[in-house]
Amino acid sequence: MPSAYQKLHSLSKSATLLNAVHYLLDWDQETYMPKDAIESRSLQIEMIASLVHKQKTSKAFSKALNALIDIETGEIKDERLSAAQLAALREWRRDYLRAAKLSNAFVKLFAKTTSSASHVWKTARDHNDFKAFKPHLEKVVSLCRKKADILGYTEHPYDALLDLYEPDAKTSMLIPLFSNLKHALTALIKEISEKPPIADEFLYRHCPTQQQLAFAHTILHRMGFEPSSSRLDTSAHPFCTGMHPKDTRMTTRIHPDNLMANIGAVMHEGGHGLYNADLPVEQYGSPLGEQVSLGIDESQSRWWETLIGQSYCLWQYFFPLLQKEFPEQFGNVSLDDFYRAVNIVKPGFIRIEADEVTYNLHIIVRFELEKALIEGTLKVKDIPDAWNEKMREYLGISPKFDGQGCLQDIHWSLGSFGYFPTYTLGNLYSVQFFNIFESAHPNWKNQVAQGSLGFIREWLKDNIHQFGRQYPPPKLCEKVTGKPLSHEPFVKYLNKKYRTLYHLTPTL
Amino acid sequence: MPSAYQKLHSLSKSATLLNAVHYLLDWDQETYMPKDAIESRSLQIEMIASLVHKQKTSKAFSKALNALIDIETGEIKDERLSAAQLAALREWRRDYLRAAKLSNAFVKLFAKTTSSASHVWKTARDHNDFKAFKPHLEKVVSLCRKKADILGYTEHPYDALLDLYEPDAKTSMLIPLFSNLKHALTALIKEISEKPPIADEFLYRHCPTQQQLAFAHTILHRMGFEPSSSRLDTSAHPFCTGMHPKDTRMTTRIHPDNLMANIGAVMHEGGHGLYNADLPVEQYGSPLGEQVSLGIDESQSRWWETLIGQSYCLWQYFFPLLQKEFPEQFGNVSLDDFYRAVNIVKPGFIRIEADEVTYNLHIIVRFELEKALIEGTLKVKDIPDAWNEKMREYLGISPKFDGQGCLQDIHWSLGSFGYFPTYTLGNLYSVQFFNIFESAHPNWKNQVAQGSLGFIREWLKDNIHQFGRQYPPPKLCEKVTGKPLSHEPFVKYLNKKYRTLYHLTPTL
Repeated sequence: MPSAYQKLHSLSKSATLLNAVHYLLDWDQETYMPKDAIESRSLQIEMIASLVHKQKTSKAFSKALNALIDIETGEIKDERLSAAQLAALREWRRDYLRAAKLSNAFVKLFAKTTSSASHVWKTARDHNDFKAFKPHLEKVVSLCRKKADILGYTEHPYDALLDLYEPDAKTSMLIPLFSNLKHALTALIKEISEKPPIADEFLYRHCPTQQQLAFAHTILHRMGFEPSSSRLDTSAHPFCTGMHPKDTRMTTRIHPDNLMANIGAVMHEGGHGLYNADLPVEQYGSPLGEQVSLGIDESQSRWWETLIGQSYCLWQYFFPLLQKEFPEQFGNVSLDDFYRAVNIVKPGFIRIEADEVTYNLHIIVRFELEKALIEGTLKVKDIPDAWNEKMREYLGISPKFDGQGCLQDIHWSLGSFGYFPTYTLGNLYSVQFFNIFESAHPNWKNQVAQGSLGFIREWLKDNIHQFGRQYPPPKLCEKVTGKPLSHEPFVKYLNKKYRTLYHLTPTL
Repeated sequence: MPSAYQKLHSLSKSATLLNAVHYLLDWDQETYMPKDAIESRSLQIEMIASLVHKQKTSKAFSKALNALIDIETGEIKDERLSAAQLAALREWRRDYLRAAKLSNAFVKLFAKTTSSASHVWKTARDHNDFKAFKPHLEKVVSLCRKKADILGYTEHPYDALLDLYEPDAKTSMLIPLFSNLKHALTALIKEISEKPPIADEFLYRHCPTQQQLAFAHTILHRMGFEPSSSRLDTSAHPFCTGMHPKDTRMTTRIHPDNLMANIGAVMHEGGHGLYNADLPVEQYGSPLGEQVSLGIDESQSRWWETLIGQSYCLWQYFFPLLQKEFPEQFGNVSLDDFYRAVNIVKPGFIRIEADEVTYNLHIIVRFELEKALIEGTLKVKDIPDAWNEKMREYLGISPKFDGQGCLQDIHWSLGSFGYFPTYTLGNLYSVQFFNIFESAHPNWKNQVAQGSLGFIREWLKDNIHQFGRQYPPPKLCEKVTGKPLSHEPFVKYLNKKYRTLYHLTPTL
């Protein structure tokens, strides 16, 4: 390996290590930090973030990068590099160009504005007080539009923001994708809503915290996690963070009266966790050792949470264990009833509580609104009405107050415009990948029903995780599935599953 | 306040915040980190430590410092500063001069050498293999002698190392202090050894982990800790770390068959914790917001662990609670028997298990040996014999293998020569301070017997904690007690307490 490449990797690794420290500060804040420490913690995080930005835009780094690839033109200067190394250079250059465009002053202003906006948002949400949040959100939207201008775009300003989370995604690609999806989903939901509701009261029987945690560990163990390189803790909102492939940290939230919220969270974060754990460790510090995008990362979490976690075969294995752990709660419930209850479809106001069928409509509402905000065709003051109107149109329900409507998510207050679509992209990717997995393992259901999950992890590692950022998402999708991303596999999957579950007439 | 002072404080605060991140990395490593993450954790710590060193020796910092105090001569350049601010400048200058003397190359070599020495030490200790450790320790001793030369000294090379932990302490002061102490202790131990042993088998009755933890929290709550700004966790070796006065983290170790090891650790670390929690928060980032020395810090931990934690009056309050929590274990034990058992005196091999009377002889053994190593009058190869000889002379026992002898502590492998004496200084300071406290609160035993401890914390805050590093240890001692540090108050305290306990003839 040319020493110039090693030098670049080494400089990059410093920034990655420092960024991992940032992740630990976040993790600690959400898990164990005494609450009065928040002020000093914010200062620590600000300082580390600023040091990471400095390292990523330092002269030493740009010089090392420029020795291998012309930063201006993207022209490769060393012909001895492998295809993977060329891909790494392309990604390093992408990161560098983006970071270099954002001045320290802008980054600080953005951090300060979103910090106070998210602070105000929390109270505004709790008091359904959109007016209090409005001036702050206006500032954030204005800064995000400015950010798009600074970062640059060729087609649509929203592209510049989207690209931060989903490299090479374009608004022009999302519009038809989401539109097709929307029509298919609303049609299916309409049919389901005409059927008698599924009984699921037993899912809300009291299950004590310690037993729920023990069951969560059983699941993670089956997924292949080892305590020597991973942890599960609790936090107000479940999340997964990876300081290193050997240091994967997941959290869940335990409601004693909602066991499945915990199990869903554990499998979801477990999906993110396996992606982190199976990144190539020798590439740590280079783009080849990083998750390629939020969309692909979400495809992993949703794969485990929904495609596996809400499958019949998984519960053939786990339900008897669940009954053993919670005999009073589930002793008199049949596997079939449990499976149907876990997969209940019911339009609701809250995104994070939504089922597989309605979930993406929540995202489409947000995508359409935030695109319009960035375009300038929607004003912040008009968000509540626009939100409620879309909820009525797509899901047939209208929030009674903004806390269960446009104030429910933290994302906008943080300036994370362009983030929401990656949730839906993740769902679409997951099924499109899954179809390929299924043809490689036609017998997968039998294996899963016996509690064997390791072969799934291996498939994901071989087909997705091992590549890091070598292939941008659209290319990775082509490589794995032979086709560009489409709404069709996902729609087909939902129709097959839920038409059976709800006794609807099969589609052709 | 002059803006130049504010500027200096602000620069210093950055380094303090970054150093707090180092503390969090250490804390996490000892509490929750998955073990396979150790390699990446070491790299993170190395990076943060190096950034802290850079900030503390940066041109920006030295310029800001030099604007207020001449770094060369120590002459003050701004007459408007308060006495406390002048003290802060003196300490900033002390830190700067020391940090600037140590080159990055030396710091790295030292870190690398001690890192592998401490790695080898662990195995050597477990296998009683001093030979394996010897070449590593030789390198460390040689580097420490070099460090002393780099840092400089006027009287004795050991002073330069001692000063790292105990500012303004001198070898010439320790020699008579420790010599007097040694004679008094060996005499008392001899008398005690002639008395029948105290029964303490009941202290080793099985007490389940969760109940022990609950009792530990009860103690910390009484000491005044709030969960909103402090935590207690478990680790292999108990410690306390403070990221900020609002973020105090203590750990304990639970042996189900040794309740008092846990309680002793909790009160010890609690003593360190209160010092951290009661540092003046507005001075965070300046020397006025830091613990003044390891010796004074240890005086706080030993104050709570021994002077309060092993007092009769404390157990008048806590023993009934302990009996309630552990009725089977302590229901048939009297308070008097419990008190005597907690204060048993018994020469042993292991420092960290030693009682109040024998403890300091363990330190004196180490002090005499490490002083000789730094002087060059003792060779590393001769340590085991010298160690065993001194143990026989001072404590009347001789280790059978080096794991319970000269290999028991990690300190030398880490190059922490000059650290051990601070343990004894802490013990001496604690009693000398306590006598002043006692004259201010002659009724303290009655209050403590009723479970009231807040007034003790207040006294420590008012007399010690609030000053940070404003007064170097010898000055602080004079300020609080009106006298220089002496072995006499400590010896008097031991004689009074243990002559009663062991029914010896009282001293005059």
